[in-house]
Amino acid sequence: MTSLTADVERWSPYSKTRSTIDEQPLSADEVDKLTRYWEASLYLCLGMLYLKENPLLQEPLKKEHLKARLLGHWGSDAGQSFTYIHFNRMIKKYNLNAFVISGPGHGAPGLISNFYLEGLYSEVYPNKSEDVEGMQRFFKQFSFPGGIGSHMTPETPGSLHEGGELGYSISHAFGAVYDHPQTIALTIVGDGEAETGPLATSWHSNKFLNPITDGAVLPVLHLNGYKINNPTILARITEDELTKLMEGYGWTPYVVAGSNIEEMHQAMAGTVEKCVQEILAYQKEARESGKVFRPRWPMIILRSPKGWSAPRKVEGHYLEGHWRAHQVPLPKVASDPEQMKVLEAWMRSYHPEKLFGKEGKLIPELRALAPEGNSRMSANPITNGGIIRKPLKLEHFQNWAVKVEKPGTTMGPSMANFAEYLTMVVRDNPTNFRVMGPDETESNKLSAIYKASKKVWVNGYLPEDEDGGNLEPQGRVMEMLSEHTVEGWLEGYILSGRHGMLNSYEPFIHIIDSMVNQHAKWIEKAAEVSWRRAVSSLNILLTSTVWRQDHNGFTHQDPGFLDVVANKSPEVVRIYLPPDANCLLSTMDHCFKSSNYVNVIVADKQEHLQYLNMEDAVAHCSKGLGIWDWASNDAGAEPDLVMASCGDVVTQEALAATALLREYLPELKIRFVNVVDLFKLQPNGYHPHGLTAAEYSALFTSDRPVVFNFHSYPWLVHRMTYKREGQHRMHVRGYKEKGNIDTPLELAIRNEADRYSLAILAIDNLKDVLGNRGAGPREKLLGERIRSLEYAYETGMDPEIFTGWKWPY
Amino acid sequence: MTSLTADVERWSPYSKTRSTIDEQPLSADEVDKLTRYWEASLYLCLGMLYLKENPLLQEPLKKEHLKARLLGHWGSDAGQSFTYIHFNRMIKKYNLNAFVISGPGHGAPGLISNFYLEGLYSEVYPNKSEDVEGMQRFFKQFSFPGGIGSHMTPETPGSLHEGGELGYSISHAFGAVYDHPQTIALTIVGDGEAETGPLATSWHSNKFLNPITDGAVLPVLHLNGYKINNPTILARITEDELTKLMEGYGWTPYVVAGSNIEEMHQAMAGTVEKCVQEILAYQKEARESGKVFRPRWPMIILRSPKGWSAPRKVEGHYLEGHWRAHQVPLPKVASDPEQMKVLEAWMRSYHPEKLFGKEGKLIPELRALAPEGNSRMSANPITNGGIIRKPLKLEHFQNWAVKVEKPGTTMGPSMANFAEYLTMVVRDNPTNFRVMGPDETESNKLSAIYKASKKVWVNGYLPEDEDGGNLEPQGRVMEMLSEHTVEGWLEGYILSGRHGMLNSYEPFIHIIDSMVNQHAKWIEKAAEVSWRRAVSSLNILLTSTVWRQDHNGFTHQDPGFLDVVANKSPEVVRIYLPPDANCLLSTMDHCFKSSNYVNVIVADKQEHLQYLNMEDAVAHCSKGLGIWDWASNDAGAEPDLVMASCGDVVTQEALAATALLREYLPELKIRFVNVVDLFKLQPNGYHPHGLTAAEYSALFTSDRPVVFNFHSYPWLVHRMTYKREGQHRMHVRGYKEKGNIDTPLELAIRNEADRYSLAILAIDNLKDVLGNRGAGPREKLLGERIRSLEYAYETGMDPEIFTGWKWPY
Repeated sequence: MTSLTADVERWSPYSKTRSTIDEQPLSADEVDKLTRYWEASLYLCLGMLYLKENPLLQEPLKKEHLKARLLGHWGSDAGQSFTYIHFNRMIKKYNLNAFVISGPGHGAPGLISNFYLEGLYSEVYPNKSEDVEGMQRFFKQFSFPGGIGSHMTPETPGSLHEGGELGYSISHAFGAVYDHPQTIALTIVGDGEAETGPLATSWHSNKFLNPITDGAVLPVLHLNGYKINNPTILARITEDELTKLMEGYGWTPYVVAGSNIEEMHQAMAGTVEKCVQEILAYQKEARESGKVFRPRWPMIILRSPKGWSAPRKVEGHYLEGHWRAHQVPLPKVASDPEQMKVLEAWMRSYHPEKLFGKEGKLIPELRALAPEGNSRMSANPITNGGIIRKPLKLEHFQNWAVKVEKPGTTMGPSMANFAEYLTMVVRDNPTNFRVMGPDETESNKLSAIYKASKKVWVNGYLPEDEDGGNLEPQGRVMEMLSEHTVEGWLEGYILSGRHGMLNSYEPFIHIIDSMVNQHAKWIEKAAEVSWRRAVSSLNILLTSTVWRQDHNGFTHQDPGFLDVVANKSPEVVRIYLPPDANCLLSTMDHCFKSSNYVNVIVADKQEHLQYLNMEDAVAHCSKGLGIWDWASNDAGAEPDLVMASCGDVVTQEALAATALLREYLPELKIRFVNVVDLFKLQPNGYHPHGLTAAEYSALFTSDRPVVFNFHSYPWLVHRMTYKREGQHRMHVRGYKEKGNIDTPLELAIRNEADRYSLAILAIDNLKDVLGNRGAGPREKLLGERIRSLEYAYETGMDPEIFTGWKWPY
Repeated sequence: MTSLTADVERWSPYSKTRSTIDEQPLSADEVDKLTRYWEASLYLCLGMLYLKENPLLQEPLKKEHLKARLLGHWGSDAGQSFTYIHFNRMIKKYNLNAFVISGPGHGAPGLISNFYLEGLYSEVYPNKSEDVEGMQRFFKQFSFPGGIGSHMTPETPGSLHEGGELGYSISHAFGAVYDHPQTIALTIVGDGEAETGPLATSWHSNKFLNPITDGAVLPVLHLNGYKINNPTILARITEDELTKLMEGYGWTPYVVAGSNIEEMHQAMAGTVEKCVQEILAYQKEARESGKVFRPRWPMIILRSPKGWSAPRKVEGHYLEGHWRAHQVPLPKVASDPEQMKVLEAWMRSYHPEKLFGKEGKLIPELRALAPEGNSRMSANPITNGGIIRKPLKLEHFQNWAVKVEKPGTTMGPSMANFAEYLTMVVRDNPTNFRVMGPDETESNKLSAIYKASKKVWVNGYLPEDEDGGNLEPQGRVMEMLSEHTVEGWLEGYILSGRHGMLNSYEPFIHIIDSMVNQHAKWIEKAAEVSWRRAVSSLNILLTSTVWRQDHNGFTHQDPGFLDVVANKSPEVVRIYLPPDANCLLSTMDHCFKSSNYVNVIVADKQEHLQYLNMEDAVAHCSKGLGIWDWASNDAGAEPDLVMASCGDVVTQEALAATALLREYLPELKIRFVNVVDLFKLQPNGYHPHGLTAAEYSALFTSDRPVVFNFHSYPWLVHRMTYKREGQHRMHVRGYKEKGNIDTPLELAIRNEADRYSLAILAIDNLKDVLGNRGAGPREKLLGERIRSLEYAYETGMDPEIFTGWKWPY
């Protein structure tokens, strides 16, 4: 196995200190101060992990000073703190506007300790004051019930990225600096995180950053060496490979590697300064020339021992520089007096008394190293984006109304019409709003927006791009074939105080289930934090939906994102399924004006029947659901049947089924109900939008059969209505995971969500009213269903009864 | 913008042909034959896209010969076919065992056409014979109702990777060649796909491939240049960056770039041969020396025009070499006589009559270029893995039984005990079974398996790895901090005829929602294909579950993967929540023996109360759910209350609630039901495991209140039981998205899934039985709940009543 070790040994953090930059910019006094400042931070990290009392070790350490349950991670703290402190120096020297993003999970102490040292933490939480009592509370609250988590959670000022679920640090950082030309995001990327797919591709974000109008991201790839229980891939490939990888991603990597603290300070100081100078120089060049180019932006590869400054070995096993330093290094400290001694000696080695004095406040000599006021990264308003958020400029959406003279008689392009409205939003909010998508904006019929602004592309151009390429270095539309990256950009953009929208094919939105979950969790917790201001909602427009994925086949049929979203907090999630163009406009306008929500809007991109004029659409969407009188013949009385729908394609089928029933069985009294706002179905105690029992019964009755045609998997409706009176009479149809290469009608038939199946279902549940009179119509409907399928198999197309269907007056 | 174009123009496929390898290995005759073979394939591609009649153009093309709906993609077909044909030459020359993976979406014609040319397609589907009639059917079926999709769907022989959802080609390829030392996976990676996160990190799979015992992957990064409507990132960065990127990933890239067909044949022939020689040489070196090293394996960067061989311009717009060639190039061919003429001329330019003669069968001169029999990539049995699949060798799982004398009185490590059984599986199936996980196998208490085999690591080693590193070049455990990659490996490993298991933290399994969805869809369709044999089930063991993520906080609490899985076909998905060690053993053994399922098993990793001895556990798991007599006092009669549970932690709380109720209200008759197999709850018509109405009522009664404590989000149970008699008396508790930094009991209380809340819920629903007698106990329970919370806030711990609780006899 020689060949697996040869290249690597010299590349351990315990080899000679190595640095791409050869400067020694610091005086001995500066090195000493930086070291002591860093030690102050590390002391606080250990305090957070271990102590609930005796915070300054003013008396000998005893068991009762220790937390009963030891939580949080030590492994990445020292390297993160080291990076932060060195960037502080740059902020002061160059008067930078910067904030920090911490990628590694559970390593928050490395930064929270700094936020406390520079005073911000106490300003935000006065009872975590800069004195012994405050420090004791600061320690105890960490990873403690009623306290704060071990990530950069919303409770932590200075954070807009929690970390923990790994992989989004780079895309969040880019999102936050787009259109913030003065801002630098110092972004610490864990080498565990760097193995994830989302992170691995997000390095390419540099091809979408405009050096004139956007800020900069300075990534620090922290080669900590280990994950929970494994070495990291990037820490074990050769230096040559790692450097090439970063160069291949388009960055200029600067290596800082070693464990000798003085030497590492010199190396890091020189390197960080070189990076800052390069960033400022590139920005100057672009901004003075007015010419966009793609710099090979600098980034830092920081290789330092995991758990740096811990004992190298404990009880015969490696600790510092090993995966054993990942979590709490001395887990038996409360039960093992030897471990407690090791801990006490270790903590005292930082000399807390010299750093914090008797009063427990960082001594002024060291405090002077940190920036002040809003120059502190912990205080950057970007990290509490609601503070700087301005509302979108929006013209009245009614100006884009589609004319509907009679409901259900004209076809119209709901999505392409919305695109015209969206063009206005893009045009009128040129530094405040972006549209994201994974290469599907054109396919999703939204390309009208290129009239206002094209797709940002800070990468190579070819002459043929003139032929409809719609690329420009300062576009407002962002497309990369990575749902993870575009979602990450959008989250970062929103959390830093701006607005935006993601458009995506419905079937592939599951790719970012987990990201949307985590964003919803962030929003929920952030809303509970008193000093955080509301940010714009995350607007996800799903199109190219399941019912028009007949031709792409089974892999493209999955409307289940709604099930995932519906599991998140009712305070945060909203789901809308507008049935036509005017409802889509009304819904999107509402979403753009909202804050602190995850809005999911499902609307197909193809031409559709139009139902409501603008006035009716606004009224319908405001209620969230309602009876469509023009499609009902129950004249306000108790109907025999309620036909209901939620979603555009399924509404057409439900209407067609209603028309068939009324044709074949004219004596039936049918009420037609359409649902736009899905959460209306839930009881009012479950979701803020939920109908009361009385409101619900007024629409759906309490005992008549309801045939409900739903866009997504049918059981989502059952899950929402299981408590409703008469729920056993609710018959829901939707996508039941039945598909292949189909025609649209064939796909609906496979899932029994077509007009014929719905009408048959209704007849089967109306025996109390119909007696035997349903048998003939039922036979006829069955026959028509079969003939439709035969036609599809013969021609590859749907019969005209489907493609040309209109509401029969 | 000069700087954005300078480097790129010379790097267009229309520049001079470029190749890293300078060989000209082909004779003029060979070039001619390869060209004609390729044209035969391209002719078939166009036929699939456009024609339903007149397959050989033996009469002039007319509108009625055209498909009414034009589907499928042309963009990547030519490049994929080109690659395939050149690899055929290598198979014949070096007698290789190879198969192909096609990453790009909807580009299947490029390969399916080849499968038809080499005869395999007609062997598998005799009515798609090698004659005019067969060719007509072959064309018509493509993207046609009742036919096949435009991906490499399960209906397509020679495929184990559908593509379409992009990003998994490399990880699937690696999975399929692990432990297949003789096999080479020719893997065509789209440059759109290459932008996805999962693909971007999967290049690192080469650090997990053992050149002695595994096969090889030859990736061909197809720089087609465009996605649907955008240039690709990798096609627009500089040559230098792209080469460095691939070298940084650890590969040796060989460039083949251009559009001149003769020159490209020479370049590709030389390059493919160089790659094959390198692969064989590395394997020889490692296998003869017995020493594992990590070769810089070769890979090919093929830059060719998108839609290669189409007209360069049509109607004044670029077609070949542009994104307009992505889908169907001439979309108006049926309505626009000019476009029809262009198509006819284009198709005739390939001279079908010379390629296929009058009979419609590839002429022997060309057929001789393809390999024969199972050497054809289309016929490799690996792509129908069930054929070569051997059952696992498994000792009786009962040998690992945990002793349980009295239910609910002893604690035991369910997961660590299962790890001992798993050690046997790993040991006894040394080339047939792998355990995958994202860096959590140790954390998940499964590290016992390192006794049988360690973690595979074909990357740098350091001396400190001796200190518990558990790494070796031939380990059976595979860990990379990318859920996407390990899941992709496992899918590839299973689909190529082997067995395995993924273990993961529950909260982060949502990261691969979409992958699991797609795998389930593959399995469902594959099971409908008569010639496909069953493959091993995809076994996903979820641990570090929500109820023990109290300390990691809100981001780590999400049990919603089950909702996603439950949306997939009932024929494919299975969900098990074994409550204790013996049930876990029984469940896992069952899963390992099963085939064609996605099995999801949820079990916590911490110590838990043990309930069932092995005999009872087997009986319980075989039924899937049942009454626990020892915890019930209804003595077989109608109970007052049914207390039910599904999941380990929640079972303990439900039992504790039962004990509290029986202590405070001894006259209550309580039946305790535990559910292991979640789908038992669904009606039997909905899922093959579903209980009949009578079976269900026999357990849950039809009218008594049921308090059901569920592991996951409670509404999943409601969704499954909404049709059940008495469902309105079903009160489900579970995780309701309420959490923060908590203790375990506090987390349960926040979600009302704790013993006190359950008992209170029961009392509130037993007024018919209890009258006012519940008021006092209710008060007491409320008090105890509050005191538990106070204790947690004070100490950070749970009271002993929780940590030491046992069933009271």
